[in-house]
Amino acid sequence: MSSNKELGDLTLRVFTLLRQRGQTVAFAESCTAGLVSATLAEIAGASEVLDGGVVSYSNEMKREFLGVSAEILERDGAVSPRCAVAMAEGLSHRTHSDFTLSVTGLAGPGGAEPGKPVGLVYIALHDARSSVVRRFLFKGERNIIRRASVVSAFELLHCRLLDEPLCGEEA
Amino acid sequence: MSSNKELGDLTLRVFTLLRQRGQTVAFAESCTAGLVSATLAEIAGASEVLDGGVVSYSNEMKREFLGVSAEILERDGAVSPRCAVAMAEGLSHRTHSDFTLSVTGLAGPGGAEPGKPVGLVYIALHDARSSVVRRFLFKGERNIIRRASVVSAFELLHCRLLDEPLCGEEA
Repeated sequence: MSSNKELGDLTLRVFTLLRQRGQTVAFAESCTAGLVSATLAEIAGASEVLDGGVVSYSNEMKREFLGVSAEILERDGAVSPRCAVAMAEGLSHRTHSDFTLSVTGLAGPGGAEPGKPVGLVYIALHDARSSVVRRFLFKGERNIIRRASVVSAFELLHCRLLDEPLCGEEA
Repeated sequence: MSSNKELGDLTLRVFTLLRQRGQTVAFAESCTAGLVSATLAEIAGASEVLDGGVVSYSNEMKREFLGVSAEILERDGAVSPRCAVAMAEGLSHRTHSDFTLSVTGLAGPGGAEPGKPVGLVYIALHDARSSVVRRFLFKGERNIIRRASVVSAFELLHCRLLDEPLCGEEA
């Protein structure tokens, strides 16, 4: 578990890299519910790199604001690699952001089902080159899982900005 | 300045009142950038009352996702009572939430202009009865202002749920 200072340092590195390149990011957040955006916005000057995003907590929000298909939500479910990619790509279609990043997972304590335990989180990153999605399985209570998701979201974007191998399992 | 425990207690009271009534809320957030939604989502079971929302950090997001008019953004500016109301009403048109709440303000340190000092925040609350907007002027650095905005957003919704007089100045 990274400290607040470590998360702050990571966020600042992401901010600095984006600003140096004149690039922006937007977030589509389910289980983190705005915490990724809010963490980046702690930095003075964040508006230079943060467009904003969608807190798609309900499936209705995923459909209406991100264009996630009913088929994905019914067949794969909201916590799935396909939904994560559809969220990031759907947000990209509706913004001019260089990067869109989505987070969807089960923060618990309820909601687990066979094959989808509490702590399962998918994070997708979309840019002009590609869409990638990574699978994470975090341990701990609800807000530990939500915070770990925020850290991993920034780690993923940080690796992409540096062209380094991405963290997390391929999903 | 309220403590984390006080904010947690307030958020839990709002959650409990909404759940008892079977009502939901969505948030349109600028300077708080997702922190209001994320705070409510700390509560296990938040999905019963939280639909989600839009982090409309850029003016483009305010236009595209909330339908705020270019005229409001140019004439009144993003930090204005009219923009706050347009954000809350725009979100209401795009969701089935019983309440929509918007936050727009100047968290600083930059961005101040004559008549719009750092710390100026407008919060609007829309429901089937009406739209109301309140003006706040918070002191302190960026993240103190952002957190105070979160507290006031929940206070406003709490007062509305109890049919009590709303906090903040009429704007």
